Amino acid sequence: MAAINDLLYKKRLGGELTREEIHDFVQGVTSARFADYQISAMLMAIAINGMTERETVDLTMEMAASGDMLDLSPISGVKVDKHSTGGVGDTTSLVLVPLVAACGVKVAKMSGRGLGFTGGTLDKLESIPGLSVSMDTDRFMRTVDESGLAIIGQTASLAPCDKVLYALRDVTATVDVQPLIVSSILSNKLASGADVIVLDVKTGSGAMMPTVEKARNLAEAMVNIGSRTGRKFAALVTDMNQPLGRYVGNALEVEEAIDILSGRTEGDLKTVSLALGAQILRLAGKAQSAAEGLKMLEEKLRDGSGLKKLAQMVKNQGGDERAVYDTSLLPKAESTMEIRAEESGYLKSVSTNLIGYAAKALGAGREKKEDVIDPAVGLVMNRRIGERVEKGDSLVTLHTGRISDVKAAQAYIRRALVLSEEPCPAPTLIYGEIE
Amino acid sequence: MAAINDLLYKKRLGGELTREEIHDFVQGVTSARFADYQISAMLMAIAINGMTERETVDLTMEMAASGDMLDLSPISGVKVDKHSTGGVGDTTSLVLVPLVAACGVKVAKMSGRGLGFTGGTLDKLESIPGLSVSMDTDRFMRTVDESGLAIIGQTASLAPCDKVLYALRDVTATVDVQPLIVSSILSNKLASGADVIVLDVKTGSGAMMPTVEKARNLAEAMVNIGSRTGRKFAALVTDMNQPLGRYVGNALEVEEAIDILSGRTEGDLKTVSLALGAQILRLAGKAQSAAEGLKMLEEKLRDGSGLKKLAQMVKNQGGDERAVYDTSLLPKAESTMEIRAEESGYLKSVSTNLIGYAAKALGAGREKKEDVIDPAVGLVMNRRIGERVEKGDSLVTLHTGRISDVKAAQAYIRRALVLSEEPCPAPTLIYGEIE
Repeated sequence: MAAINDLLYKKRLGGELTREEIHDFVQGVTSARFADYQISAMLMAIAINGMTERETVDLTMEMAASGDMLDLSPISGVKVDKHSTGGVGDTTSLVLVPLVAACGVKVAKMSGRGLGFTGGTLDKLESIPGLSVSMDTDRFMRTVDESGLAIIGQTASLAPCDKVLYALRDVTATVDVQPLIVSSILSNKLASGADVIVLDVKTGSGAMMPTVEKARNLAEAMVNIGSRTGRKFAALVTDMNQPLGRYVGNALEVEEAIDILSGRTEGDLKTVSLALGAQILRLAGKAQSAAEGLKMLEEKLRDGSGLKKLAQMVKNQGGDERAVYDTSLLPKAESTMEIRAEESGYLKSVSTNLIGYAAKALGAGREKKEDVIDPAVGLVMNRRIGERVEKGDSLVTLHTGRISDVKAAQAYIRRALVLSEEPCPAPTLIYGEIE
Repeated sequence: MAAINDLLYKKRLGGELTREEIHDFVQGVTSARFADYQISAMLMAIAINGMTERETVDLTMEMAASGDMLDLSPISGVKVDKHSTGGVGDTTSLVLVPLVAACGVKVAKMSGRGLGFTGGTLDKLESIPGLSVSMDTDRFMRTVDESGLAIIGQTASLAPCDKVLYALRDVTATVDVQPLIVSSILSNKLASGADVIVLDVKTGSGAMMPTVEKARNLAEAMVNIGSRTGRKFAALVTDMNQPLGRYVGNALEVEEAIDILSGRTEGDLKTVSLALGAQILRLAGKAQSAAEGLKMLEEKLRDGSGLKKLAQMVKNQGGDERAVYDTSLLPKAESTMEIRAEESGYLKSVSTNLIGYAAKALGAGREKKEDVIDPAVGLVMNRRIGERVEKGDSLVTLHTGRISDVKAAQAYIRRALVLSEEPCPAPTLIYGEIE
């Protein structure tokens, strides 16, 4: 068993850790034999000196094997999953999971409850009255096998090493480190057992990867490394220079997903959700190409079977399925408030991070695990980048509640939005796909 | 007040921290506002990306100012101190402090009680029956002013930031990092208040700096940076490819120092002690040159006034001064044991670290703060590198006691000593001086 000091010294000097050394590191982390201050020193050494692809593969595999590894084979057919590197107004799962399931592909999705601007997928789902994201593994598998979909909270026994590293990265300025991102995301996905995994790698002002190039590198690394594990991987690099959907907040995002599945709403959220879903259908062998997959998904949207699948999922997980057909049953904010343009122009840019902070200030997201969120609060972006704005137009509608810090949210939003006198282009939405 | 994540991110990317940022870091460490895992991430970032000379100066000054700074001005005249980067059989202080004081220069020496192969200077002194290294600051200053010398334990209120960093470096493979060594050593010395400080930077198999080049770089950096603080600094780079003295252990090293001061023993320990002392006399303005200083020290050795000064110091600190004239009053080991040469040849090399481990196994040093040491145990090196050895000659004499792990010590020593059939040269003793 390697001593942590030897491992640290080797990585400090830029050496390549062997598979065995990485095994020892992961075991030392998982068993709490290594102290937090030693683990964080290793994270910093990796952040600066990097890891080879071989090291990253080994770290991924060892982290995946650091706890239970779900065996989904009792579920018949191909099992699929997706993962987003995270953004604001990023509700693609709630749109694509029901549509993909409506196409007959089984979605066995486990989500973590990370910290973020708004709650994660789990928090969004929990804003549906009665719905629970806790389910034991047997029922989870039976539910997916019979109804084609379920989204539940990931159990603590999957990839426990990542839990430790993830928490430490957040407080040691080592979040945006490629081998650590890759191994964190892939280890969880591998432990969750799906055969097909599609990744949505975000880039822009609200993403971990600020540049398209970095996002593409990350996406390529994940697909390369993931594909070496015997699973099928693909990734899209998509835009996060403004919130993806118009709605930001937990119940608000559920509402927008339902609006899309009902055919009432178009927009970037729909486009990206379907593009991701099309990749899933292609990898699962349900469609010959992404284009064919896209057509299948559009059909399931048009005929309402996607919405029906969502209702079925909500019901299976104990929620009130009527909310899917009547969004007035979702939690509603106590009051709303408009933030209006102080001058005319074109919306030039959005600091998406600041929009996220605004949503958090309203009570939609958590800073610390124990923070309480309000499912009803959030905000609606009334303009997208490139659109014309007249003085007095509402730029953003705040949905506020008792725990909202409205003043802070307003200040964030004022700082986040930049108008220009000149017309300006909308950002590219999908920068590329990596197969 | 800078957030730790911002500081970590900046250093991770190789940036240069401003004086204000370094201030915030030191304050965050000292006040425990920053967590250990964040501090260790910074240590690793510094280990890999380095610090500029300006950053190192600022870190040194901020660390020195992180707690009390002793004002020795009530003591008349120039106050001097010395510091060794540490080695085995490295008892220079006990030889040079009395000799320098005998020349009329006041030595106000505070020592830390670091972990090491054998105890530090404090442990060695405490092996003299009755002697105490605790003294309040007022009495310390009065003692030095009146008698010219005192060696006491450093109070916890000096350079508290270093206490935290030092402990973390030890467990995160960041001990041998130049800006961290420089700031650690200098901050303590600056806070201790002496006007003249002479540094003994060791190099070789028992030193933190394995190569002469690295040791010289470190010595130059410390003298450069130290000299910017208004104090006078000089350094020698000296050899640690074998224990400096022949005796390794607490009472044993006191005995060797007394033997030197009594004129009974010659050798490398005496040579290096006098060379360091000569630098002190030069910097203190007592001698025009190191050569002149050396002559003065040799005179004080010859006329016994060095030995007398040691006796006075022992008495001042509550110890039995008769032990200085009759070393049979020092603690003696229960038994001794010879490790003999299994073949004839020349002593080619010594893994000094392993000799240190052997001394620790015998009970002369601590692994953890709470470990008990036996003042009487240790070992005597009967051959120096380059000397002829006949089969059956004693290479090392073990002095053992109840807590000694003799078997482990023997194994370390067998591994540490390498004989050669060909004659081989003795290593250089003093590689250079930096003024």
